[in-house]
Amino acid sequence: MRIETVCTGDELLTGLTIDTNSRFFQTRLLETLGLTVARNTVVGDVPDEIVEVLAQAAARSDAVLVCGGLGPTADDYTAECAARLARVPLEEHAGARAHLEERFRSRGHALTANNLRQAMVPQGAQVVINSLGSAPMFVLGVGRCTLFFVPGVPKEYVHLVESQVLPRLQALAGRTPYARLKLLKTVGLPESHLDAKVRPLFAQHPKVTFGFRTHAPENHLKLMAVGDDPAQAEAALAAAEAASRQVLGDYVFAEGDQTLAGAIGALLKSRGETVAVAESITGGRICAALTAESGASDWLIGGVVPYRESAKQHWLGVKAETLAAHTAVSAEVAAQMAEGVAAGLKADWGLAVTGYAGPTGGDARNPVGTIFLAVAKGEAPATVERHHYAFPNDRDRVQQFAAWTAMESLRRAIKGAAR
Amino acid sequence: MRIETVCTGDELLTGLTIDTNSRFFQTRLLETLGLTVARNTVVGDVPDEIVEVLAQAAARSDAVLVCGGLGPTADDYTAECAARLARVPLEEHAGARAHLEERFRSRGHALTANNLRQAMVPQGAQVVINSLGSAPMFVLGVGRCTLFFVPGVPKEYVHLVESQVLPRLQALAGRTPYARLKLLKTVGLPESHLDAKVRPLFAQHPKVTFGFRTHAPENHLKLMAVGDDPAQAEAALAAAEAASRQVLGDYVFAEGDQTLAGAIGALLKSRGETVAVAESITGGRICAALTAESGASDWLIGGVVPYRESAKQHWLGVKAETLAAHTAVSAEVAAQMAEGVAAGLKADWGLAVTGYAGPTGGDARNPVGTIFLAVAKGEAPATVERHHYAFPNDRDRVQQFAAWTAMESLRRAIKGAAR
Repeated sequence: MRIETVCTGDELLTGLTIDTNSRFFQTRLLETLGLTVARNTVVGDVPDEIVEVLAQAAARSDAVLVCGGLGPTADDYTAECAARLARVPLEEHAGARAHLEERFRSRGHALTANNLRQAMVPQGAQVVINSLGSAPMFVLGVGRCTLFFVPGVPKEYVHLVESQVLPRLQALAGRTPYARLKLLKTVGLPESHLDAKVRPLFAQHPKVTFGFRTHAPENHLKLMAVGDDPAQAEAALAAAEAASRQVLGDYVFAEGDQTLAGAIGALLKSRGETVAVAESITGGRICAALTAESGASDWLIGGVVPYRESAKQHWLGVKAETLAAHTAVSAEVAAQMAEGVAAGLKADWGLAVTGYAGPTGGDARNPVGTIFLAVAKGEAPATVERHHYAFPNDRDRVQQFAAWTAMESLRRAIKGAAR
Repeated sequence: MRIETVCTGDELLTGLTIDTNSRFFQTRLLETLGLTVARNTVVGDVPDEIVEVLAQAAARSDAVLVCGGLGPTADDYTAECAARLARVPLEEHAGARAHLEERFRSRGHALTANNLRQAMVPQGAQVVINSLGSAPMFVLGVGRCTLFFVPGVPKEYVHLVESQVLPRLQALAGRTPYARLKLLKTVGLPESHLDAKVRPLFAQHPKVTFGFRTHAPENHLKLMAVGDDPAQAEAALAAAEAASRQVLGDYVFAEGDQTLAGAIGALLKSRGETVAVAESITGGRICAALTAESGASDWLIGGVVPYRESAKQHWLGVKAETLAAHTAVSAEVAAQMAEGVAAGLKADWGLAVTGYAGPTGGDARNPVGTIFLAVAKGEAPATVERHHYAFPNDRDRVQQFAAWTAMESLRRAIKGAAR
């Protein structure tokens, strides 16, 4: 079953409005029917262009969801275009008119000639009264295609898609294949390497579609298994997941909705341990990620952003001699920061990161993009890593990669530590 | 001149990824050339479908911007499809290959066969090396249409559209009307109030288009003036800006690319003053925003995320009695945090915020969504504000509004303070 979507409206082509409707429909279509949209076309308020787009989409598809252009104003052409497509006249729908009259009466507004345009639908269309708005939804068959016309106001769209469009699509589709999804999240592996590791599995898992998605610094692997029944889809998915985990090993830090911070929190919570953070180059990003997790106070005692050297000394006990001998961006200072923050806050774990985000700063040995991260546990000396990111003039990216690399090192350290 | 856009990628049709690229291009096209996109088509990773969409768009248009599908993985088909469209073979581009080799060498990664696919472009295409990524951009003429193929990674897309696509479109379009733009950024004013304040100006400024954009918690006013020559456009813009600033007053915190953090930094720098931050509910977001500004160390000494009470006591000298008497979410604790962080780090200004982000926590007097923020200057007692955000079950939104409200209060306090 081929499904397309068409969105009309100049405002969707001038950068003024974000189309959240299509994304909602796509997600719910996949979740409820295991189907995906084949094509989405966005077109301005130009009647000839709308008719052309509708005709082509209808000729290619079993179903088309059309959104927008059903309002009362002069640039709302969709009902007219639908009538031209079906070669029928527009006619007033009694139920739609009664709904409009009642709606305006109850609000104490006068009903204008413009408003009455919203009761006009193509002859022969099936009309669904829209309890949340004035424009009705209508359904029109053209050739072998069913077209659903829905208002673009997000609240009305969501309600009508959920209550009307999806059930009707389900009925049209008949028995749809069962789809099961799994998202595996990795960090530290370039997308091309993720692909190279997973590609050899494609042939062995013909019922599974492997997809890749970059959410820098993370790369995600999306598995979608399709089967004739739930058990078949689940078995295919489980096999593909196991094989993927086998080749990806510890690069997989979480699945589904879990975040890297959430994975760290879950590990700490299961061990009854706590962490404290000292982050200078990342400027609060690690703490912001950790505290985005509800219940973070169970395992996060606090963090510090010691941006200037005086703050490193005041809060973390970093020694003036160490700063003088090694500079603030050094393995020695990173280690003292991690040890100092853990000791100061009596946390089980200390995480620290220092570096040069750029665009200025750095020196020949440690140029912009260099970071030192340190993980401390108990009384033992901190473990330090040096990384370098070649993202010139991209301060934001250096900060983001530094934060994620530091969190991932913490996650692996916790995971690998004896209880 | 008719321009269309085509975006490829299954992830754009399954609700997994939001297409921010199209909106960026649409906005910049309008801003720089005064032109709008006629149609945007989103298509999955299906080669036949991509070729069909490209062929139809090229037949209808003077220029087509194609985004996505230039990556190294198996589901990246765009270069192949472009070659099919132009009926030419793919061939390796020496410059693109050299760029790939250098890029991987400098990162210490091995270059795989997959990666080398990114050096393959349609014969006869004009290649632009992409300094921010591995896939090159290329330009292809098909009939009377010029097609621009650009990687979908937003950072690369933005850079290439700005530096390559828009200048080339300008050259293709010839003389376009002169447009001048100004973005005024507000915080603390709901979008409907911003609209109500500015709408009466529309009639007096017929050469100016007023647009509104929500970037929660900020609301932006976009002014676009069009004229037959630059002086006319600039005069119309200046008049509309002055009138808008008159009605919006101090709600305007910045214009253009300046951020709220940047506005704070500029104020502090001009006064030779410094700030230190203690943020508990916002968990590092304020520090992250401040340190996103290059040169933040000129005016930011550091910050602390005292997530648990022990951290508030250890780092900020918040008194145990105060915590016991008033709880951690109270005007008294916020004041001690702001005073404590400024005194501890010897900063001119101290900013603090505490509150309940939810979904759990809070009490009858101070439910979830309540925050206390405090601004301290010198020896004087801190000024405290209480706010409440009714965003149930939206921890992220409460944290974001709390961070922005606190920063805006700091900005106003600095602006209003005697030197």
